[in-house]
Amino acid sequence: MRFFSDNAASVHPKVLEAIARVNQVDTAYDGDALSRSLDAAFSEMFECDVAALWVSTGTAANALALASLCPPHGSVICHAEAHIQIDECGAPEFYTHGAKLLLGQGEGAKLSPDSIRAIAGSIRKDVHQAQPHAVSITNATEYGLTYGAGDVSAIGALTKELGLRLHMDGARFANAVVSTGEAPADLTWRGGVDALSFGFVKNGGMSAEALIFFDPELAEATRYRRKRGGHLLSKGRYLAAQILAMLEDGLWLENARAANAGAATLGQAAGPRLVYPVEANEVFIRVKAEEAARLRAQGFDFYDWAPGEIRLVTSWDQPPHEVSALATAIAKL
Amino acid sequence: MRFFSDNAASVHPKVLEAIARVNQVDTAYDGDALSRSLDAAFSEMFECDVAALWVSTGTAANALALASLCPPHGSVICHAEAHIQIDECGAPEFYTHGAKLLLGQGEGAKLSPDSIRAIAGSIRKDVHQAQPHAVSITNATEYGLTYGAGDVSAIGALTKELGLRLHMDGARFANAVVSTGEAPADLTWRGGVDALSFGFVKNGGMSAEALIFFDPELAEATRYRRKRGGHLLSKGRYLAAQILAMLEDGLWLENARAANAGAATLGQAAGPRLVYPVEANEVFIRVKAEEAARLRAQGFDFYDWAPGEIRLVTSWDQPPHEVSALATAIAKL
Amino acid sequence: MRFFSDNAASVHPKVLEAIARVNQVDTAYDGDALSRSLDAAFSEMFECDVAALWVSTGTAANALALASLCPPHGSVICHAEAHIQIDECGAPEFYTHGAKLLLGQGEGAKLSPDSIRAIAGSIRKDVHQAQPHAVSITNATEYGLTYGAGDVSAIGALTKELGLRLHMDGARFANAVVSTGEAPADLTWRGGVDALSFGFVKNGGMSAEALIFFDPELAEATRYRRKRGGHLLSKGRYLAAQILAMLEDGLWLENARAANAGAATLGQAAGPRLVYPVEANEVFIRVKAEEAARLRAQGFDFYDWAPGEIRLVTSWDQPPHEVSALATAIAKL
Amino acid sequence: MRFFSDNAASVHPKVLEAIARVNQVDTAYDGDALSRSLDAAFSEMFECDVAALWVSTGTAANALALASLCPPHGSVICHAEAHIQIDECGAPEFYTHGAKLLLGQGEGAKLSPDSIRAIAGSIRKDVHQAQPHAVSITNATEYGLTYGAGDVSAIGALTKELGLRLHMDGARFANAVVSTGEAPADLTWRGGVDALSFGFVKNGGMSAEALIFFDPELAEATRYRRKRGGHLLSKGRYLAAQILAMLEDGLWLENARAANAGAATLGQAAGPRLVYPVEANEVFIRVKAEEAARLRAQGFDFYDWAPGEIRLVTSWDQPPHEVSALATAIAKL
Repeated sequence: MRFFSDNAASVHPKVLEAIARVNQVDTAYDGDALSRSLDAAFSEMFECDVAALWVSTGTAANALALASLCPPHGSVICHAEAHIQIDECGAPEFYTHGAKLLLGQGEGAKLSPDSIRAIAGSIRKDVHQAQPHAVSITNATEYGLTYGAGDVSAIGALTKELGLRLHMDGARFANAVVSTGEAPADLTWRGGVDALSFGFVKNGGMSAEALIFFDPELAEATRYRRKRGGHLLSKGRYLAAQILAMLEDGLWLENARAANAGAATLGQAAGPRLVYPVEANEVFIRVKAEEAARLRAQGFDFYDWAPGEIRLVTSWDQPPHEVSALATAIAKL
Repeated sequence: MRFFSDNAASVHPKVLEAIARVNQVDTAYDGDALSRSLDAAFSEMFECDVAALWVSTGTAANALALASLCPPHGSVICHAEAHIQIDECGAPEFYTHGAKLLLGQGEGAKLSPDSIRAIAGSIRKDVHQAQPHAVSITNATEYGLTYGAGDVSAIGALTKELGLRLHMDGARFANAVVSTGEAPADLTWRGGVDALSFGFVKNGGMSAEALIFFDPELAEATRYRRKRGGHLLSKGRYLAAQILAMLEDGLWLENARAANAGAATLGQAAGPRLVYPVEANEVFIRVKAEEAARLRAQGFDFYDWAPGEIRLVTSWDQPPHEVSALATAIAKL
Repeated sequence: MRFFSDNAASVHPKVLEAIARVNQVDTAYDGDALSRSLDAAFSEMFECDVAALWVSTGTAANALALASLCPPHGSVICHAEAHIQIDECGAPEFYTHGAKLLLGQGEGAKLSPDSIRAIAGSIRKDVHQAQPHAVSITNATEYGLTYGAGDVSAIGALTKELGLRLHMDGARFANAVVSTGEAPADLTWRGGVDALSFGFVKNGGMSAEALIFFDPELAEATRYRRKRGGHLLSKGRYLAAQILAMLEDGLWLENARAANAGAATLGQAAGPRLVYPVEANEVFIRVKAEEAARLRAQGFDFYDWAPGEIRLVTSWDQPPHEVSALATAIAKL
Repeated sequence: MRFFSDNAASVHPKVLEAIARVNQVDTAYDGDALSRSLDAAFSEMFECDVAALWVSTGTAANALALASLCPPHGSVICHAEAHIQIDECGAPEFYTHGAKLLLGQGEGAKLSPDSIRAIAGSIRKDVHQAQPHAVSITNATEYGLTYGAGDVSAIGALTKELGLRLHMDGARFANAVVSTGEAPADLTWRGGVDALSFGFVKNGGMSAEALIFFDPELAEATRYRRKRGGHLLSKGRYLAAQILAMLEDGLWLENARAANAGAATLGQAAGPRLVYPVEANEVFIRVKAEEAARLRAQGFDFYDWAPGEIRLVTSWDQPPHEVSALATAIAKL
């Protein structure tokens, strides 16, 4: 039973159907009708004019977003455990041509205005130091915490004060929206976010993420960078179709709701073992090595995260009986 | 009726079926069983041990290949009309970190050993000039010409003599194999090719190309560069499945044969109007502006290529009656 | 007798004296009084507010200038024989992070508006091609031709029309000013030049060139790029001192006049052997191999440039008797 | 009285004389007799065959060294307060094309084998993380501590075990040699160092540092990178002359001895106020704001380093009476 990651989950049948349905010929790259409809679809969701570009991976979305917000000689403030720092093999450095990541602290990989201010304040205003140009936050974070609208706007107010741009890595944006119950607009541009990596692959998609620019002009250079990065697929309509299928009838929210619910169940079972509150679809719990072994012996697959700590991730397609079984097993430890 | 490019063609039903079939959960990235089977599948086809990596676009395959063959301070010899020079918005320069492309001449975008030697010979052996490290040829070329095994091995002998590596952009490799009737091994490593961008998308695939290294050690750094470029999809099994479906029962050859046959028919109809011999699935013919207009008025869609010259590209899924209709229309001009 | 290049000439005694004189302690980097006086010195020369940064080499000046005018996904139009293309080992590609150089033609490495328009016009306005963002011209050119104020403003009008920025590689700017007799302002910003690499090393300096931005705001990011490129010397006052010594009492013009005069003498002697008119301090003449050998046997050192063609470069410190001797030798051939 | 940095000190008269003396014409770039003699001069000093390249700044030396030891997709382990991380505006990221710096801890900016092992051990061996390829240590450190031969060889043994290369930033290498009393060879290659940035500018030079490769083959690509970085000066003989003057009769040691002696005097005066032991030419002491103000009022110029902490740097040319005066003033606080 897979609890090691949502990134290996199955593709939602409606996404597969959408792919099969799209198989007429159309213009190549992103000139087709489906790709051209993305701006409107996301503008409606976000209640403002946005530019929306499909890409194949969250890493590409993040790296392209950062390249649009920070010059090669600048730096980006992010959490020391952010995905862009830890798990992208230097993609941000590659796409920004060598900008530095300045690493902040905070429980559960969550940055606070104070932690951002502390890092920004540590940089002298001279040419010997790579000046901060942007902040990147992950919502939900790599440890399953969420930034609510208040959190985002507090950070957004600070970035505005400091003259920085704001990026949100939303690989699990759907889980954050469902968890906070707040409007996508409130979690993003109304709070000051300039660019959002909007994840679908962990949430039932196959190979399409959306990169959303709340200032459409920011997207212009990114269209060239996307091509130059080898990310402009010639049959782009198949990516657009996946995203549109996820948006239709709120499938993205439905899937995230299912994943979050699974995590909530596990969280309740874990009780005092929880390392962080469960706010999305990730559950970190304290277990001894032999306890972890016992869970594995029952068929549960997951990552050891730190000594005495394991990570459990629930997915949109997690069978409820698997979740129940794991909850029971945890409770029995 | 679409004759403007094969890159917008439909996806072959067997590829779509393979995608639908793969929808069980497996390890993420390229650790799944399908991805892990690619090395063996291509090693059998090429009659030697190869490393095969999936990527989403031909541009990514080309740029990653060149980055593995040429350092940032080096240069790559290619044709002045090569796709890597003309149509990839600097992706080779991005992935190689600024290597230069040295541009050669030759009819139909085809390089000869003499043209390669001329360019290589024009570079002084000092640090003021970016020294050539690799040659890149396209088979079939951007104008639909092919390099046969003899052509490849003549170039390979020269690159060996000059201490250069050899890359083949095989966006239409299938068309070249079918056209020449020669073994994949003879068209590549036996002739000296070090890395091949093996295209499937123009030939019935959806979003998967293969990057083949004939020296598997060359692939090692590329695995990092692929991740760093944002090209390591988490559900990579869907790319592997596409490629495996194309290889099964020779579907890739069958599709290329269909596309080539269409071009041959058009070529015969065009007769003396042909700019280049028709050796793959592209046909360049001389027509006056009013003749082009007449063809368009009959519903044929294609690119003007140069003053008095149009390009017609046939695809694997081209309905034979469309080809016949165009052939007739050309003959009647 | 050295006629192979002006880049190996001796350092003018006044420059050496200025270096010796500066040896008091001051602030490091470019915060010292001498460095801080450069803006004013060049603003006076150019009759407008400029930002002037010292760097150690013409290659650094050129590459930094281009990086300020062209993004990584863009391209720069220059002559196929421009120094930035031929002799800088990819420094422009390094500093611009992979922008492409688009190569134009023209006698004597001189670009015309028509040649620039032709290249710009060959680029489709889509994301598959690296869009032109700048033009770079060399004055005097690599073959010793000059752009007069009229030439510059014709090109400047075109770049403005096309939305491009304009860079001038002035490694031999002094020779061009002397030769054309026109004001520095007329040869640069009044004609539309945005950034100038102003050379001193070939003209009696030791290790200091000036990078001039006619829009001082363009200089801001360059200050970071200069540091990041390792070009912010801690004892920058020694570079500023060299430049100021060259400017004092018009030493830069005096030196260029001497070098140009030498070339003029050689040009007259060469008569019909001249490949290009002599407009600066370089002379290209047609000689047979055995004639070249005869010159060498008399102690003249120079480069073979092409089959049947040699290059003679005169320097500010060329002893007149050496020039006369060579002129006589050429006339006797 | 300047105690803010050694990087603004005057140039030693013998260096200026050497510059004046070299003013004959010779080949350009690094082909002249002086430049060509550097390999031999340093090979003698280091008792092994080395390749020695001049560059203009320590930042260039460091960044070029790291680019030769670490690929773009790799990472370099260094101290969190290393100059390459804090004060080079991303030059290492620029020259390595985006390699990451992994930051370790340790008193006085000094890395221990344990701290290096901890960082290396935190990186998973998969393509999602930039794998460590090199370690960089600074000797003397940014806080004036030294690595003795034993320290270096302990680190060198570890890097060998881990398959990493070892770089030493020797901006104050002379101070470390004088302080430890150990042979240059013992402080470098015998302990496992692959490349050394050998500083002269802080120690009486003007604009020349040496980049030493203990494996001469490592230097080959660096020659291209130096040109490409704009660091191949055409009159390179003036850089070589500076370095040779510094080496002659042990001037580099004599100067470092003077600077270290000054710091020792200050250290003794500071006694319990010392933050770190004084092992080179930097002294960090705890003073209250009003005490600092009192020192400044007496004409001493220095940097505040942290709240309640100031940095005093002594230079080769520090007049002994200034040192005595400052020592007295500190003692009187």
